[in-house]
Amino acid sequence: METVSVIGDGNVLSSSELYQTAVEVGRIIAEKGYVLVCGGLYGVMEGAAKGAKEAGGITVGILPEYSSVANPYIDIEIPTGMGQARNVLVVSSSEVVVALGGNYGTLSEIAHALKLGKRVLGYKTWKIEGIDYYEDREGFISTLLRSL
Amino acid sequence: METVSVIGDGNVLSSSELYQTAVEVGRIIAEKGYVLVCGGLYGVMEGAAKGAKEAGGITVGILPEYSSVANPYIDIEIPTGMGQARNVLVVSSSEVVVALGGNYGTLSEIAHALKLGKRVLGYKTWKIEGIDYYEDREGFISTLLRSL
Amino acid sequence: METVSVIGDGNVLSSSELYQTAVEVGRIIAEKGYVLVCGGLYGVMEGAAKGAKEAGGITVGILPEYSSVANPYIDIEIPTGMGQARNVLVVSSSEVVVALGGNYGTLSEIAHALKLGKRVLGYKTWKIEGIDYYEDREGFISTLLRSL
Amino acid sequence: METVSVIGDGNVLSSSELYQTAVEVGRIIAEKGYVLVCGGLYGVMEGAAKGAKEAGGITVGILPEYSSVANPYIDIEIPTGMGQARNVLVVSSSEVVVALGGNYGTLSEIAHALKLGKRVLGYKTWKIEGIDYYEDREGFISTLLRSL
Repeated sequence: METVSVIGDGNVLSSSELYQTAVEVGRIIAEKGYVLVCGGLYGVMEGAAKGAKEAGGITVGILPEYSSVANPYIDIEIPTGMGQARNVLVVSSSEVVVALGGNYGTLSEIAHALKLGKRVLGYKTWKIEGIDYYEDREGFISTLLRSL
Repeated sequence: METVSVIGDGNVLSSSELYQTAVEVGRIIAEKGYVLVCGGLYGVMEGAAKGAKEAGGITVGILPEYSSVANPYIDIEIPTGMGQARNVLVVSSSEVVVALGGNYGTLSEIAHALKLGKRVLGYKTWKIEGIDYYEDREGFISTLLRSL
Repeated sequence: METVSVIGDGNVLSSSELYQTAVEVGRIIAEKGYVLVCGGLYGVMEGAAKGAKEAGGITVGILPEYSSVANPYIDIEIPTGMGQARNVLVVSSSEVVVALGGNYGTLSEIAHALKLGKRVLGYKTWKIEGIDYYEDREGFISTLLRSL
Repeated sequence: METVSVIGDGNVLSSSELYQTAVEVGRIIAEKGYVLVCGGLYGVMEGAAKGAKEAGGITVGILPEYSSVANPYIDIEIPTGMGQARNVLVVSSSEVVVALGGNYGTLSEIAHALKLGKRVLGYKTWKIEGIDYYEDREGFISTLLRSL
């Protein structure tokens, strides 16, 4: 099975547009037959995992600490105990990485992904050279659909 | 889903008793409803993944290098690029770790697992205090069956 | 001893302005009594280590691979074998991180540093929110002198 | 500068024979001109760092967590935030690794060191094939003196 990684803001509420977009992204990933890989925590990671599970997919959470509690939509938990050094592991398995919002942790993952030659699709996230960046949801979703 | 980790000799041939035992271990793990986690490479890792797939299970390979080529029975590949530092990740996700033969890499995984308070079942591997160690296959398999 | 980390472009030639700036940065770090920490390789890392050694300082190189060959100005080599996952280790020891040019690897280090709450001084590098960013060398050097 | 790594029991009191041996080991390492690398914490790590400092040496502590507090004899702190995954970093820089007592964490470091082809000198530690193992202090110290 191939994987797609979703990274982004870990603090958005489930009522936010970013979370809802993550749910849609997760659903698409699962419908297209990919395994979802994410950091296993909350916000965008939870939304994407929720969407993937609703579409019958499999979800993997690469957790930062041994004691991290994954969101309830994660099937397979990999607790790394490695803190931020785990960020590169969230993106290294996938050829396509989707970034939704996010702060410095997400930025480090974008950078690692681009360094590893991954395709990075961004929505309202860091506007870094090399990202396929979108601020309109329709353009973003339609590109995602064509990319998988 | 819960996971069981299998570690051990990466060099044994598929005709060896250790490989065949790994196939049986993988099959039991899948039949009991667990996801198999291993280092993703060959020998014991391949045997266990083969057994898990034959029983309809899901397999995860935590690979040492970005360029590592997983054995053909791995569903989800996590290429870490971390070399030996990835060894702890192979055992950190599971409450039960099964060790079959193996050299210093396996020993480091056994040590990490015991340090993390995991239950380690060993068959013809390092005889370390704290392992539930077996040299007879029947006793080992019957303990594995009762432990999952 | 406290450390200052220098990150940046690993490919610039010793004749370049960025390399020469790195030499000056390394000299200042050593003269102010700090240990220099860097990725141990070439370009900006070599320049900074050269400057630190010329001023009688101590230099540490956190190398990506077991087989990495450090530049000749590194006193203490820590070969991690961890590939990109080592990037966070280059910045985690220092309260002040200096970024000189650089590509995606440097961006990941800037992001890790900002996430860890470090002060990041940047010269002709990624213009990320949260960095103290300079394009004029004098302003940059004078801020560095005041920061250490 | 070349390094020697010291690993072992992190809980022994400063009055213990193991701690006193660590002090002597650290002193020898520094007198022979090597930099001491250790995990940066207490017990054997503290003793070795104390001995190295008393002999005018330089000490490096590869700490498990960002928040770890190093023992007072560590010059250069590398806080990894990587938990147990940092263990391999404690041994990867040195050609000679000295093990004094210790539990599962030490065992994982011994295993990583042997896997990396390091020479491991052990005193009252895990009796693993491949270690140069001693229970008498004089034999151990005399071998250490000849090895550096």
